[in-house]
Formats: sequence, structure tokens, C-alpha cells
Amino acid sequence: MKEFFKVIPPAEVLSLCRQFQPVGAEAVPLSAALGRVLFEDFSSQVDLPPFERSTMDGYAVQAADTFGASESVPALLSVVGEVKMGEEASFGLSRGQAAGIATGGMLPPGADAVVMVEYTQDVGPGQIEVTRAVAPWQHVVRRGEDVTKGKVLLGQGRRLRPQEVGLLAALGQTELKVFRRPVVAIISTGDEIVPVEEEPPPGKLRDVNSYSLAALSEQEGALPQRLGIVADDFEALLARCRQGLEAADMVIISGGSSVGARDFTLAVVRAFEGSRLLVQGVALSPGKPTILADVAGKPLWGLPGHVASAMLIFRTLVAPLIRHLGGLSPAPEWRAPLQARLSRNVASAMGREDWVRVRLREEGGALWAEPVLGKSGLISTLVAADGLIRIEMNSEGLDKGELVEVFPF
Amino acid sequence: MKEFFKVIPPAEVLSLCRQFQPVGAEAVPLSAALGRVLFEDFSSQVDLPPFERSTMDGYAVQAADTFGASESVPALLSVVGEVKMGEEASFGLSRGQAAGIATGGMLPPGADAVVMVEYTQDVGPGQIEVTRAVAPWQHVVRRGEDVTKGKVLLGQGRRLRPQEVGLLAALGQTELKVFRRPVVAIISTGDEIVPVEEEPPPGKLRDVNSYSLAALSEQEGALPQRLGIVADDFEALLARCRQGLEAADMVIISGGSSVGARDFTLAVVRAFEGSRLLVQGVALSPGKPTILADVAGKPLWGLPGHVASAMLIFRTLVAPLIRHLGGLSPAPEWRAPLQARLSRNVASAMGREDWVRVRLREEGGALWAEPVLGKSGLISTLVAADGLIRIEMNSEGLDKGELVEVFPF
Repeated sequence: MKEFFKVIPPAEVLSLCRQFQPVGAEAVPLSAALGRVLFEDFSSQVDLPPFERSTMDGYAVQAADTFGASESVPALLSVVGEVKMGEEASFGLSRGQAAGIATGGMLPPGADAVVMVEYTQDVGPGQIEVTRAVAPWQHVVRRGEDVTKGKVLLGQGRRLRPQEVGLLAALGQTELKVFRRPVVAIISTGDEIVPVEEEPPPGKLRDVNSYSLAALSEQEGALPQRLGIVADDFEALLARCRQGLEAADMVIISGGSSVGARDFTLAVVRAFEGSRLLVQGVALSPGKPTILADVAGKPLWGLPGHVASAMLIFRTLVAPLIRHLGGLSPAPEWRAPLQARLSRNVASAMGREDWVRVRLREEGGALWAEPVLGKSGLISTLVAADGLIRIEMNSEGLDKGELVEVFPF
Repeated sequence: MKEFFKVIPPAEVLSLCRQFQPVGAEAVPLSAALGRVLFEDFSSQVDLPPFERSTMDGYAVQAADTFGASESVPALLSVVGEVKMGEEASFGLSRGQAAGIATGGMLPPGADAVVMVEYTQDVGPGQIEVTRAVAPWQHVVRRGEDVTKGKVLLGQGRRLRPQEVGLLAALGQTELKVFRRPVVAIISTGDEIVPVEEEPPPGKLRDVNSYSLAALSEQEGALPQRLGIVADDFEALLARCRQGLEAADMVIISGGSSVGARDFTLAVVRAFEGSRLLVQGVALSPGKPTILADVAGKPLWGLPGHVASAMLIFRTLVAPLIRHLGGLSPAPEWRAPLQARLSRNVASAMGREDWVRVRLREEGGALWAEPVLGKSGLISTLVAADGLIRIEMNSEGLDKGELVEVFPF
């Protein structure tokens, strides 16, 4: 009755995922750019700042005029004007001259340094004494010091943080080209599933996975589309998948690998011309009976219906594919592994990767990971969990007290 | 010329922030609940699952009928029907009887366990042999095993992850009460600042901070409102602040603590009746000249204009206040500190907390934190940085090779 699954390791699934092409580009206004992924390298057309800029309140000078200046032997300079904030000086500086300037002000032509106001003294009309020497370009941001014209500043595939948004603002980039957010269509299957807004009659349950998978997709930067519930019926599932494949970049059939629906899912894959079945079982628990196919260049997943299995497969396999489709560059993510001691023995089968939900607690100055026990159909175990631990394929389990790496989720 | 700042430690600023009241509630549909914060405790009105549910494909039985069963001495049961997926059985089970059932099916009355199909054998019309004993409730999720009616499941102040969204879906919670997203009004000041879409004339620069502070606010779950640029002018700043305080839960004057604007910011604070100046300088670098006031119960910040200072103050002081205003419970966040070795000596002044931007790189199997040097007005230093390190108030600096904690940002 149970069909044979050609089970492959998770790493092989991830490598198969790389054959899918990232989505195309769209233009977004800068105010909507946070978290988006650059579609092309970005380089500046200008120098930033475009002028020599003071970083202090004081006087613009020629540095050479201050060489050797001290409290006892101050340098005497004549003040020829003041630079107004946000304006270009209407005068230049010659030797022996100074001009008042505030932080952010533009240096007048001829000036090559700023003396802090603390090291100057008014000594009569239009004259100051400088009591400390400055080096050339001291207290000045040079033209192009922040950004040099023509240099690649941000590479394709980079996700934009607040500072990148700020940089683009500084350069007047009011609109930019980013990868579209991948659209993920989610179809729930199962004769026992009713929509969330309905009161389930005896024997039925509400559609949990459409919502948790949509939330997971959103968390990865995708746009989820919930396409409702389809009964265990080939024609209905085929029609809904066709709809999903037209509108979306990826289709997930939740419950599509369960015993009742599995054959329909496989038949649907076969019904699309040129489709290829890539995965039919993963050496991973919970979540083994996972299906992945390439349908006209788009990934179609059949995920297990149990909530814990569905979420785990999403996290380990679907999410990386969403990031790949979304154009994200596989640059290193500097994330520290969270280490904790296991609070009890956990058994595992050889030949599969096991993922265990854990709750974290601090006790005696140490962090403990306490397995959350419960069947993989229980959503409460996921709510109680702070993270997941992985037990390698070639391990028979972990011992109490062992140091484990916890993946927050 | 430089006014005296009553500088206080960052921890004191954070404690002053706790006097502000969190924002009110709003109702959101479940599909928009991800990342939102619960306004009240949530408990279930029902048991979940609402019926005894099979976790395997096989036969519903009375466990006692299988006791002692084995390959050599199988138990003989008569099959009285099959439970249809998503339906209530139209019959009950008596001793000696079994009923076909699939994973997720509802147990018929009288049944108290499920025998996996692998341990059964058809032996003629309406009869099976069971070759392995099951314990009562084996392969069954009991009614209420996932969620017990009446128990508090999710506490007020909890941020909703995908699994919490799934739980609420399971319980038919199509709408829920969450804290509003705090609205953050951002005003830029400075005679030298022009809007991003304009080409700055000589001496002027584009408004970087409105965009980076808006992105930071968004990252914290707030709704940023950019209120444009105000020149260094008391009346104009007062009017814009009044507008911000009416529409928003927090007002940030970017560049409002710079030398030119500082007096205007303080005058604006004083102009609001009953306002209280809470902070006028923080022992933190970069970002010391930070202002915080309580204006009619709402926080008003005057942040330094330098991009690095502004972002740092946001991260260390403004973001925690946004989370507090947004009702987030101060539960432990299980985050592992990212540790790296410092690539060079870094000096620091006693009596202030220093934050240094660092770039991370792996070399010789170790992670190195390399300080990104550059003036605090340079946005490129933030773009180059992977994180920040903190040098404690009572430290004179850190040595090359020292192990430091890196805060990704």
C-alpha cells in the first residue's frame, strides 16, 4: 500500500533547486526599498560629498598658516568672511586669511583645513589668533571621500538595509531596479479541511497550513497567494495548479504528499508537458514524503500536511529556494550559532536528518535546550518551541548534556 | 560657544523611556498578523483537535482486542466499515470489531487506538488479522491534546511568528486585536539639506537621514512618516513638530541636536505646555548630543545630523522605545552573541560608551572584526560595516586580538 520513495539527502534537494531561474526585475521607489534585493550592480554617477566639507565649527584656513602655532606663539589671521550653511562662499582664501564655517559647511576655494573654534581667539576687528596647528585637510571631509564616482558601491543580489537606503538617498536614487518579490501560490488539499472562517463539522479541521506557509513566505520576502482548498480530486487539483503556475513563481500544494493526495499530485505533475519530477522523498524527519517538480521552469512542491513537517520542510528547503528565486546573493550571513545543552537524550534513525523542536531556558548560568515532545500534527509544539536542533544523518541520536546548535525559528 | 551637556549613561535614557505609554489597539485580519504584537492574552474557546484523530493509515480498534497479538498468534477482528476522511463515522465499534481509517480520520465511537496497516492482513470478506498489539490511544491524537479549551495560549505583548499565525488559523481566529504600529514622524532640519529628488546646488547635500531613519523605523515594526525638511527656523520647526505630534506617536528631529538647530529644538520643546526635557546629552559615541523630551506624553527626539551618529542612536535608544510603544513584551530574545577577534587596537575615552563599526572576515579559521574607519558623517562606512562593537564606559579601549561581541546591524 505504501509506495516506495526514492529518498535523497536535503543537500541534494538544495542543489537541485539551483536550476530554477531567479525572477525578473521591477522598479520601486526608494521609500519601499528596505529589504529588497538589487537587480544590478549600483555605482555612483557623482562624488560624495561633491565638495570639501567641514566636520567642525570653526574657521576655514590654509593649514600652512597654522604650522608651529601654539598657546604661546599663536598665528594671526585676518577673517575675510563667513561661509553660510548650505551656500557656496562668494570669496576665496589667500595666505594669512580665515573664514568662519560651521559643521557641514562648504570650504571656500583656497582653504585646505578647519581650525576648531576652541583653538581660536578674537583679537580685534576681523582678526583671530590660532593657538593650535592643523594638518592639511584636518577636520574636512574631502570631495569623494564618502563615495567615489564610478566605483561599484552595491553589488547585484544585495539585500538593502537602512544604511544602503540612506546611501541611495544621498545619491538621489529616488527609484531603483530590484528583483520582484517571488509570488508563492499556496493550495491546500484534503477532504477533511475547511476554510478558517468556517466552523468545522465533526471529522474536519480548519486549514492551518495555508496561513502558516503564507506567513513563512512573507517572512522570506515573497508575496503569498492563498488559493484555497481543493478536495482530493485530480481534475480540481490540476485546474488549481494551472491557475497557480500562471500567476505565481512557485506553487506549494500543502497536504499534497499525504497518502490520499500523493497520487493526485504526481498525476498533476505528469499532466504538464515537459515537467520533471525532481524529488520524491527527502531523508529528513519530520517531512520525508516531500515532492518537488519542475513544471515549465517553475517549482511545484507537494508538502506533507502535518503542520510541523510542513513548517520544517519550508524552513530547510522551500525558504532557500525562495531566496534563490528572489535573486539574493549567497553571500556569507554573519550569524552566530546559538549553543545550548540538551536536557535529555534524543534518539534518531541513521540515514536521515532529524529536526527536533526545542524550548530554551536558562538554568545555573547555562542555556538548556529542552525537546518539545508531541506528534508532528500538533501546532502547539511549534508555538512552544524557540528553535530547532538538527541531528545529522549519520547519527543515532544525541545525549543529555551534549552541546547542540539551536536554530531560532 | 559650546553649551554644556548634562550627559547621562545610555542605560539611564532607556529607563526614562519606560515612562511613555504603549499605543492602543487595532483589529487586523489573520492574513496581516505576522510580526504584530498581541494586545491581550489569547485563550482558546475550544479543544483542538475537537475529536480523536488517527495519526496513521490502518484500522481503528479497541486496544484490548489486540493485547497479546503477534505474528504467530494474530488477533482476528471483523471489519464493520470504513471511516471516510473528513466525516463522522456512522457506526460505533464494539469488542472484536475494526474499521478502516486514514491519517487524519476521526475515530468512530468505541475505538481507542489505531493499528497500522502494515501489521494487519486481509483474511477473507470482512475479516482482518492483527499481528501486533497496540496500547490504548496509540496512533491517536486525543481530543484537546493540541490545545486545551480555556488555557492561555499566547500572552499579551507576544510577537506573532508563522506558527502562532497557524495556531490562530486552527482556532478560526480570522481577526485579532493587536497593538497599533507606532507612527514615527521624521523631520529633517538644516539649511544645507535638500530633498532627495533635487540636485543639490554647491554647498548643499541631499536628505539622507529621513530615509535611513524611516527604514530603521520600518524594521522595528513602526510606520514612518517623513515630514520633509525644515530650515533652521524656530517658527517653522514648531509648526512641523506640532503637525508631527498630532499625527504620530513619536517625533524625531533629525539634525535637531546639531549646533545650528539645537537651540531651536530646545525652544520648541519649551513652547509646548507641560513638556519635560528628559535627556540632553548621552554618554555615547558617536551620538552624544542627543535630546529627548516628553511632549504631552509623546517622545520627541533631537538626533544628531551625522548619519552614523543618527543610526547608532536609533539602534541603541530609539528602537527600544519603539518596541516599548508597540507593546512588545520584554521576554528574553534567544540570540547568540557573534564573537570575533579585533584586527587592531581601538582607543576609547573613559566615561562614555563607544560604538565602533566593523567589517567581518574569516581568516585562518577565525572570525575577525576589522574597524571601519571614517568620520561619522560618512554613509559609506555604514554600508561597509557588518556590525557594531561596543566599548564599555569604563574602558580606555580594546587590544588587537581581543575577543569582542559583534552586533549585526
